[in-house]
Amino acid sequence: MREFDEQGITAAVLARMDQCGDARFRQVMTSLITHLHDFVREVKLTDAEWMGAIQFLTGVGKTCTDKRQEFILLSDTLGVSILVITLNHPASGGTTDSTVQGPYYWEGAPELPNGANLAIGVKGEPAFYSGRVLSSDGTPIAGALLDIWSGDGEGTYDLQMEGDVGMKARGRIRTDAEGRYAFRSIKPEYYPVPTDGPVGIMLRRMGRHPMRPGHIHMMVSAPGHQAITTHLFAAGSEYIDSDAVFGVKESLVTPYAKHPPGAAPDGTRMETAYYTVNYDFRLRRA
Amino acid sequence: MREFDEQGITAAVLARMDQCGDARFRQVMTSLITHLHDFVREVKLTDAEWMGAIQFLTGVGKTCTDKRQEFILLSDTLGVSILVITLNHPASGGTTDSTVQGPYYWEGAPELPNGANLAIGVKGEPAFYSGRVLSSDGTPIAGALLDIWSGDGEGTYDLQMEGDVGMKARGRIRTDAEGRYAFRSIKPEYYPVPTDGPVGIMLRRMGRHPMRPGHIHMMVSAPGHQAITTHLFAAGSEYIDSDAVFGVKESLVTPYAKHPPGAAPDGTRMETAYYTVNYDFRLRRA
Repeated sequence: MREFDEQGITAAVLARMDQCGDARFRQVMTSLITHLHDFVREVKLTDAEWMGAIQFLTGVGKTCTDKRQEFILLSDTLGVSILVITLNHPASGGTTDSTVQGPYYWEGAPELPNGANLAIGVKGEPAFYSGRVLSSDGTPIAGALLDIWSGDGEGTYDLQMEGDVGMKARGRIRTDAEGRYAFRSIKPEYYPVPTDGPVGIMLRRMGRHPMRPGHIHMMVSAPGHQAITTHLFAAGSEYIDSDAVFGVKESLVTPYAKHPPGAAPDGTRMETAYYTVNYDFRLRRA
Repeated sequence: MREFDEQGITAAVLARMDQCGDARFRQVMTSLITHLHDFVREVKLTDAEWMGAIQFLTGVGKTCTDKRQEFILLSDTLGVSILVITLNHPASGGTTDSTVQGPYYWEGAPELPNGANLAIGVKGEPAFYSGRVLSSDGTPIAGALLDIWSGDGEGTYDLQMEGDVGMKARGRIRTDAEGRYAFRSIKPEYYPVPTDGPVGIMLRRMGRHPMRPGHIHMMVSAPGHQAITTHLFAAGSEYIDSDAVFGVKESLVTPYAKHPPGAAPDGTRMETAYYTVNYDFRLRRA
């Protein structure tokens, strides 16, 4: 068979995988090709739209650098990332929900002493975070690792700052013998995902705002447990009901308790108001 | 609504287009997002597969240069390009079929006199092409433009050759007052699509060969008519029944008549065997 009509082409492409030795890959590609062709037929994609899609995807690829991942942003803003996470990390047994990693993770943040300030010299209102890392049965986990990152108090990440500023508002903290962690950072603010690339153009054409509510990221891991990638969201933050990447989970929305100037939890004398956040993470046994 | 389960996320993403002022864009994105989410749910895409997809697509973008379009190659090898063409350019009324453009079109080939040799110094067996460009009712079209390109007789395109060789086996030819065109080039050979990039990796994992049967490309255009982008395929070429990009149409498969050394159609004294090809293109009125 050489020539295929608009229906037959799908079976023809699938038949070319007859020699595929990887059953899972074949299953994934079969579903992908079928849906891709169904989409093209359903909307009767025009030549110009097809070329627009080629140029868009090429632009997304070209926008990716070692400091920016526009394809993750595309996946995030189309709800694909959170769907993958929700499918693979269903909340159960009281373990902490996962959410999107986002495009700003930077491997290799410094390991700092429990209680350290991750945000020295970073703009924003100070916030003191504390809590425990627990196993799903409630047992505290000693030596669990929190790999923490966020933007500054204006929602700007170090990777987005002018010049090569190095790591800001990032650090790794280990729990103590009682499973306790503590660190100081800032109260995160809402901010726009990057809108100066192809995904920004897409969002504008969709009539969508690009905002994410204030949140701080962490990966939490411990031997013998499933690691999680998650956020804490600041309760009451603007855009908490319309996160541009659909990442909000009720269980991750956390009050930031405001305190007047005075002695902070770590004994620091604060000249300005500050916040405290208390949150326990629960990990599933591996 | 803040939090979405694995079904509800799709409606949530679609609802974000409430303010979209472009009805067609909204229709296309609605179908795309729905199929993309259905695909992810259907195969229960894992975290690692999602990250593999992000890396693959980023790699496809990074592989694109001003001389190589890996996203078009991806679309071609997944049968998407030919599907879009088949939907938008149904053969009817005896007009010439369209097929894929492929990734090697290079705008601005020199306009050469009718009868010119496009392949001076290009490897391959000589072939003399001739025929007419006709309107769908059979009226010859004077001044129709053929923008022609192919690889050499080993299937290598100028864009793939070592160094900056400039244009090879490319040229634009106009029909004469009787709608006739003629040019000399080579008999095209089968060749592999580029396999040193992400699409090559994908084809190997799918268990597919990367070969295209021998073909020569042309865009044919004329005032008052719909332009077509098409190929002529060499009848009997290897891989004609399993083109890696699904581009073969029976109506475009053309005999290459072989002749012993002697006087060619343009009067040239040929020292080697040569081929002749005769094909009439028919364009739909715009």
